[in-house]
Amino acid sequence: MTKRKIFNDPVYGFLYFPYEILYELIDHPYFQRLRRISQLGLTQYVYPGALHTRFHHALGAVHLMLKSIDTLRIKGIEISEEEAEAVCIAILLHDIGHGPFSHALEHKLINAHHEDLSIHFMEALNHEMDGKLSLGIEIFKDKYPRRFLHQLVSSQLDMDRLDYLTRDSFYTGVAEGVIGYDRIIKMLNVINDQIVVEEKGIYSIEKFLMSRRIMYWQVYLHKTVISAEQMLIRFIEQIKLRIGDEPCLKSIPPYLLQIIDSEDFTINNPEHLKRFSRIDDFDIFFLLKSCVESTDFVLQYLSKSLINRKLFHIITSTSPFNSDDVNSIRHKTESLLNVDKLRAEALILDGSESNLDYNSSHNEIKILKKNGDIVSFLKYSDLKVNTDRDILYYLCYPKYIFV
Amino acid sequence: MTKRKIFNDPVYGFLYFPYEILYELIDHPYFQRLRRISQLGLTQYVYPGALHTRFHHALGAVHLMLKSIDTLRIKGIEISEEEAEAVCIAILLHDIGHGPFSHALEHKLINAHHEDLSIHFMEALNHEMDGKLSLGIEIFKDKYPRRFLHQLVSSQLDMDRLDYLTRDSFYTGVAEGVIGYDRIIKMLNVINDQIVVEEKGIYSIEKFLMSRRIMYWQVYLHKTVISAEQMLIRFIEQIKLRIGDEPCLKSIPPYLLQIIDSEDFTINNPEHLKRFSRIDDFDIFFLLKSCVESTDFVLQYLSKSLINRKLFHIITSTSPFNSDDVNSIRHKTESLLNVDKLRAEALILDGSESNLDYNSSHNEIKILKKNGDIVSFLKYSDLKVNTDRDILYYLCYPKYIFV
Amino acid sequence: MTKRKIFNDPVYGFLYFPYEILYELIDHPYFQRLRRISQLGLTQYVYPGALHTRFHHALGAVHLMLKSIDTLRIKGIEISEEEAEAVCIAILLHDIGHGPFSHALEHKLINAHHEDLSIHFMEALNHEMDGKLSLGIEIFKDKYPRRFLHQLVSSQLDMDRLDYLTRDSFYTGVAEGVIGYDRIIKMLNVINDQIVVEEKGIYSIEKFLMSRRIMYWQVYLHKTVISAEQMLIRFIEQIKLRIGDEPCLKSIPPYLLQIIDSEDFTINNPEHLKRFSRIDDFDIFFLLKSCVESTDFVLQYLSKSLINRKLFHIITSTSPFNSDDVNSIRHKTESLLNVDKLRAEALILDGSESNLDYNSSHNEIKILKKNGDIVSFLKYSDLKVNTDRDILYYLCYPKYIFV
Amino acid sequence: MTKRKIFNDPVYGFLYFPYEILYELIDHPYFQRLRRISQLGLTQYVYPGALHTRFHHALGAVHLMLKSIDTLRIKGIEISEEEAEAVCIAILLHDIGHGPFSHALEHKLINAHHEDLSIHFMEALNHEMDGKLSLGIEIFKDKYPRRFLHQLVSSQLDMDRLDYLTRDSFYTGVAEGVIGYDRIIKMLNVINDQIVVEEKGIYSIEKFLMSRRIMYWQVYLHKTVISAEQMLIRFIEQIKLRIGDEPCLKSIPPYLLQIIDSEDFTINNPEHLKRFSRIDDFDIFFLLKSCVESTDFVLQYLSKSLINRKLFHIITSTSPFNSDDVNSIRHKTESLLNVDKLRAEALILDGSESNLDYNSSHNEIKILKKNGDIVSFLKYSDLKVNTDRDILYYLCYPKYIFV
Repeated sequence: MTKRKIFNDPVYGFLYFPYEILYELIDHPYFQRLRRISQLGLTQYVYPGALHTRFHHALGAVHLMLKSIDTLRIKGIEISEEEAEAVCIAILLHDIGHGPFSHALEHKLINAHHEDLSIHFMEALNHEMDGKLSLGIEIFKDKYPRRFLHQLVSSQLDMDRLDYLTRDSFYTGVAEGVIGYDRIIKMLNVINDQIVVEEKGIYSIEKFLMSRRIMYWQVYLHKTVISAEQMLIRFIEQIKLRIGDEPCLKSIPPYLLQIIDSEDFTINNPEHLKRFSRIDDFDIFFLLKSCVESTDFVLQYLSKSLINRKLFHIITSTSPFNSDDVNSIRHKTESLLNVDKLRAEALILDGSESNLDYNSSHNEIKILKKNGDIVSFLKYSDLKVNTDRDILYYLCYPKYIFV
Repeated sequence: MTKRKIFNDPVYGFLYFPYEILYELIDHPYFQRLRRISQLGLTQYVYPGALHTRFHHALGAVHLMLKSIDTLRIKGIEISEEEAEAVCIAILLHDIGHGPFSHALEHKLINAHHEDLSIHFMEALNHEMDGKLSLGIEIFKDKYPRRFLHQLVSSQLDMDRLDYLTRDSFYTGVAEGVIGYDRIIKMLNVINDQIVVEEKGIYSIEKFLMSRRIMYWQVYLHKTVISAEQMLIRFIEQIKLRIGDEPCLKSIPPYLLQIIDSEDFTINNPEHLKRFSRIDDFDIFFLLKSCVESTDFVLQYLSKSLINRKLFHIITSTSPFNSDDVNSIRHKTESLLNVDKLRAEALILDGSESNLDYNSSHNEIKILKKNGDIVSFLKYSDLKVNTDRDILYYLCYPKYIFV
Repeated sequence: MTKRKIFNDPVYGFLYFPYEILYELIDHPYFQRLRRISQLGLTQYVYPGALHTRFHHALGAVHLMLKSIDTLRIKGIEISEEEAEAVCIAILLHDIGHGPFSHALEHKLINAHHEDLSIHFMEALNHEMDGKLSLGIEIFKDKYPRRFLHQLVSSQLDMDRLDYLTRDSFYTGVAEGVIGYDRIIKMLNVINDQIVVEEKGIYSIEKFLMSRRIMYWQVYLHKTVISAEQMLIRFIEQIKLRIGDEPCLKSIPPYLLQIIDSEDFTINNPEHLKRFSRIDDFDIFFLLKSCVESTDFVLQYLSKSLINRKLFHIITSTSPFNSDDVNSIRHKTESLLNVDKLRAEALILDGSESNLDYNSSHNEIKILKKNGDIVSFLKYSDLKVNTDRDILYYLCYPKYIFV
Repeated sequence: MTKRKIFNDPVYGFLYFPYEILYELIDHPYFQRLRRISQLGLTQYVYPGALHTRFHHALGAVHLMLKSIDTLRIKGIEISEEEAEAVCIAILLHDIGHGPFSHALEHKLINAHHEDLSIHFMEALNHEMDGKLSLGIEIFKDKYPRRFLHQLVSSQLDMDRLDYLTRDSFYTGVAEGVIGYDRIIKMLNVINDQIVVEEKGIYSIEKFLMSRRIMYWQVYLHKTVISAEQMLIRFIEQIKLRIGDEPCLKSIPPYLLQIIDSEDFTINNPEHLKRFSRIDDFDIFFLLKSCVESTDFVLQYLSKSLINRKLFHIITSTSPFNSDDVNSIRHKTESLLNVDKLRAEALILDGSESNLDYNSSHNEIKILKKNGDIVSFLKYSDLKVNTDRDILYYLCYPKYIFV
C-alpha cells in the first residue's frame, strides 16, 4: 500500500498510481518542469481552454496504461509487476524531452528531436536512481523482447495517442474529437507479441481515426494556429540573428541566452541537457514581452502581434504558391507597413503542413478476427480516406498596423 | 409569456417551448401514448439503458428545431413566428404514427407505414384543433413553398436524425455515437431555399456520418437485437395464425384483438385509427406473458424465450444462406427441441438487413463553399465508405431448452 | 479469465464482473424480471427520462461494490475472493424482491416488505444453485461476523444508495443530485470492523447529504409524482374491491388474478413466491388499459386519468388537513364530476409523506479523524438541517372531466 | 447579424455574443492580457488541470448573463437592447483589473483592489471608445436606477460567481462543486427592482451554497494552495526588499521593475495604469526562474522551492498559534537549513484565511414565495451552517534541503 496522493483529472476523474517510483519521478524537477510546457503551443489562441500541459498528459497516459494492463491481464496475457512498472515509467517519461511550446518550437530552439531528448533525460534520471529505470528505458527504445509493451508506449494505438486525442478534445471543447478510449482499451489483446484489436472493436477504430482526422483539421492544423506558431518560429529566428546587437535583449539571463544561442548544443553533454531543462514556455513569453519595445522593426512587430493576438492573415492552398503570389503579397506588406523589401520578407511566412504521416501508417493497426486470423485494419475496414489533399501550403502576412 | 412547464432532459438539460400549442399537443392522449412506445424496440436487451421513448425523442427534436431556427435567423434567414411554430408542430408530431416497439413491428401489426399514420393522426388532431395545424402539416408533407422548412423536419440532416442519434447514443452508452449536434446546427444555412452546411462544418459532417455508421453496426443492426426483434415478429405472426384457437389468447381484450386480427384495418377510417391509438408496448408484452403457458409449443417457446431473454443463436453472412445451411439448422433444431419439421421451421428465422438506405443518399447533404458555390458532400469530402458489405444476411434459431 | 459480457451503462461506462456466478444470477428469470420493474414508479410522469429499471440499478451497485473492494484492499483491508464474490452477490440481489413500480406499490399488491421478499428469492436461488449463495445471504442478513461487508450492502453509505442517487439523478436530469460517488468511495476505510469515512472526505459527505435532500424534495417526493402514485394505489384498491364483479376484469389471466386477489399470499410458500415473480409493471399498465372502458365510474375515471396523464390536483401542507378542508374538496368533486358522495370519496386521496427516515440516522456515518479518533458525522460537521418541515401532508382530487 | 466568431468553451460548448462591441473589447490588448492571468493563482500545484484564465472566465460570465437576460425577458421583465449590451459589457470587464495570479498577489505587487483597477481600465477603454461603455460602467458602479442589473454583475448570485464556481469545479475536477447554474438561472426573477429566486428553486440555492462551501474548503483554502501562495507572497516581499542590491535582478526589464518597485504607483495616473497592464503571470514566473541562482539565500530558497514544487510544510489550527509554537518552528528551521534567526524568520509564514465573507451575507438571497411574498433565504431555508470554524490559522515552514 502506497500512501501517495491521488491526482484530480477533469478528464478521467481520479488518477492513482500503484508504483512508488512513479511518484518519485513526478517529484523530480525535470518532470515538474513539464507543468510549464503547454501541450498544444499557441492553440490557446483559437481554443482558449487549451492550456493543458505535458505534465497532465503524461499522468493521463499512465492512467490509460494501467487500464490496458488490467484488460490484458484479464484476457490471460501475463505481465509481471516488474514489466507493468517499467511500461508505466516509459509512458510517464515519453515526452520529458519536450521544450517550450512542445511541437511548435521543436528543432527551432535547439536542433534535436524531442524523443531523443527524452531518452537522454531518462538516462540521466536512471543514473540518479541507481538503474531503477533500466527496464523502462529498454521498453521505450524497443529493445525489450516482449515488443507489445513498446507498442503500448509507441504505435498507432499507443497510450500517448489515446490520451492526447482525448485530452486535447476535452480542453479545446471540440467534442467530436472524443475517441472512446475505454472501448478501444477493452478491445485490445496480444497475439504473437503484438497488440491487436478484437474484431468487434472495428467501429471504434474507425471512429478513432475519424476523430483524429477531425482533430488534425480542426485543431492541430487550424489555420489560425499555424499562423500564430509560424510567427513564433520567425520571432525565434530573428532573435537568434540579433542576439548580440539588440539592446532589449541585453537583459536575457545566461541560462536562456545559452539555449537561444545554441550553436554548440550537444545532446550528449549532461551540462547542456541540464541547461535545456531550465527553459520553458515562460521564457519564450518573457522574450516576447521584452521585445515589445525593441528598436528593431521586425522584432517589435512580431512580438506586439503575438502578445496582443493581432495575428497574421493566412491563405492556404493544396498546391505550392508561386513566386508571383509571394511577390504580390510582399508588395502589399511593404506598402501596408511602410517598410523596405528586406523587412517585408522577414514578415512573410510560407511553408506547408501535412497530416500524411498520420494517415500513411493506418495499416499498422492489426485486427484479430473471430476465427483467429489477423488482418491489417486497412484491408479489413470499408472506410477509405482520400489523401490527395493532405498537404496544406500556406502563406501568412501582416494585416495590422500598430500606432 | 407562456407559463408552461419545463421538461428535464438528461440529454440537453432543460426543454422549454415558446408556443402554447405545443403543450396542448403534448397533453393530448395521442401524444401521451408515445410515453409507452419505446424508441428502440428490444435494443434494451443488449443495451439495458435504452429504455427511452418516442415521447422524449419528439420533445428533443423540437428543442433542436428551436436552436436551428435561432441560428438561421442570426444568419439573416427570415422565418416568421407562424412558420417557426408550424415547423415545431411538424417535428413534434413526425413520429406520432409509430406503433408498439417502433420500427421493430412496423408493418407487422397492421400494414401501414408510420409516416402515413403520422399524417392521419395530424389530420385528426387538426380537425379537433380547428385547423391550427394546417401549416405544420403542409410543411410535413413538403407542400409548403419554403422547402427548407420541410428539410429541417425530414432530410439527411433533419432534427429527427440529429436527435435520435444523439439520444440513442446517450441512452445506449455508446459514446462514440455522439454526433456534435450543436456544431452541426451552428453550421446550417439556407441558400436557394435549401438547407446547406457551411464549408468549415465539413469535418462535423464526416464525423456525423461515421457516428451514424457506428450506431448502425453497433446498435441498430446489432446481431442480438436482430435476433430478439425477429423472434418478436415471428411471435406476432404466430399469434395472428392462432388467434381463434388458442385458449391462452381468450382473455385478450377487444381493443387489442381487433388490431392483432387487422385484416380489415383501413388507415383512412377514423375509428380504425383510434383503435390503433390504443395499443402500445405494454400490450405486446402482455401478450408475451399470457402465452408463457400456451398449449401451442411454438407460441410458448417464443414467449418464454423473449420474456426470460433466452435469445436465439444468430449467424450472419454477407451473402444469402443456401438451402443446405437452412436444412442443417432445421435438423439441429428438430433434434434439440424434439419437435417435428413444421415446428422447427416456425422457429427458424432468416432474412436480411441493410443500411444501404442510409448510405445511398449521402450526396444530398449540400456544402456551401466560402466562394459561394454549393457542392454535394460526396463530391467534396475525402471520405469514402465501401458499401459492398452493407447487406447482412442472418439466420436465427433456438439454442435453449426449457424444462 | 471469464469470457462473459460487458454491459454498457450510460452512467458509468462499462460494467464488467469478475465472478462467473454473477452472470448466472443475471441470466435467471427472477433477475431478468427486474428489466420490467421501473426503479422510480411513475416518476417518469414528471421526469420523462426516468425509465430506468431495478435491473440496471442492481448492475450499477455491483460496479460500485467492486470499486469499494479495490479501494479497501489498497488501504490494506483484507477481503478474500470468497468474501468479495459474496458481497457482490448480496448487492446484486438486494432488490430482487421488488414488485411492480417498486416502492410505489409496495405493500399494496401483496402485504410484504421488498427486503423480506428479496431474502426469499435469494434462498430459492441458493437452493437451485447448490448453496453457492450462502455466504452472500449471510452478509445480506448481517449474520456474517465481518460486519463492514453488510454495511457496504446496507447502511447510510451503502452501494445501493450511492448507485440509486447517482442513477436517479442521471436519468431524471436533476444534475444537482450528483453525489460524487467516486470520491466518497476513495474516502472509505474500515476501522474496528465498521465502515468509516476519512476526515478529508467530510465535504463530500455533506454534499452527498445535500444531494440526497435535493433528490427527495425535487424527485422522490415531487408533488406530481405523489399525486400519480396515490392514484395508482387507489386504482389497485378499487380493483381488489371489484375483482369478482367487474366485466372488464374478466379477461385478467390467472397468474395476475391470484396476486391481485392475494388474501392468502404467504411469503414462505414457494409457489406463492413463484407466482409473485410473474408480475411486473406491464401487468399493472395492462390492467389500467383494460379498465378504460370499465362500467364502474371510479375505475374508469382513475384508469383514464393515469393512462392519459390527466393527473389529480394536489395541495400540500406541513400540518394535517382538517375535516372541513376535506369536506369542501369532496363537495367540489361531487359537483365537478356529477357523482355521489361515495364516488367522490373514492376519488379523494389524502395522506402524508416523510423523509424523516432518511434524516434521522445521519449520525450513523462515522468519520475517521487524522488522529485516529472516530466521531459521528453529525457531531463533527458544521452542517445542520432543520427537520421540522419534513412531514408533508397532501390532498389529491380530480380536476379533469372526460367527455 | 454579426459575423463574429464563436468561442469554444469546454464548460458550456459554444459562446456567441450578439453585440459587436463585446468583440471589440475582447480584441483590446487590455483584455487579451487576461489570457496570461490565471484564474486560480497557484492552485494548479494541487489541481493540475486548474490552468484556466480570467480571459475564459470573463467570456463564460457573459454567456450566463445572456441566458439570464433571456430568462427574465420570457418572464416579462423588460430589458432594452441598450441595457442588455451594457450589462454584458459590465460583466465582461468586471475582472479586467486583476493582476498576476489574481487574488494570490492582490495588494502585494501594487496596493490596489482589483475592482478599483477594473473601473480605471473601463474608463480608459470608454475614453478610447467614445463613451460607448458609459452605461455599462454606471451599472458596474451601481449608479444605474434599475439596480437588478447591477445585481446580475455583483451580488450573492451574480454571473461572476455562477461562472467561477462552475468553471473552477470543472477545471479542478472537483465534481461535487458543480452548482447547476442553468436551473438557478431559470429560477431568477425581478421583483421591485431586485433579483429574486422563485420558491421552487430553493433546493438549487441550498445546493449552490453547499457547492461553494466545498469549493472553499477543497480548493480555494486548500492547505497546499495556501502554502504555495504564501511562499509566492513572501518571495515578492523579498524581491521588493532587495531590488537594488541583488545581482540576479539586474536583468529585470524596466516595465517590470517599475511595478515591483511600486511605491509611487497611483491608480489614477493613466501612465501607471498602462504600466500595470503590461505585467502578468509570466513576469512573476520569470522572476522566480531568475532567482534560482540568486546569491541571497532566502530568495534562492523560495524560488527553487516554488519552481520545483518543493512546498513548505503547513500546519493549521482554528485558534491563533502562540509565540512558543512559532519559536519552536523557527528553531527547527534554523537547524534544518543551517541558517541564522533572521533568515529562518524570513522563511516562516504565518497568517489566517477565512471564508466568513462568503457566509455572512447568505441572507441577501431573496426567495419569491408562490403567494408573492419575498423572504430572505436564511429565514426560509431549513439549512444552517455553523460558522465557528470558519477562520483557519496556518503556519508554513521549510521541509526540504536543496543540495
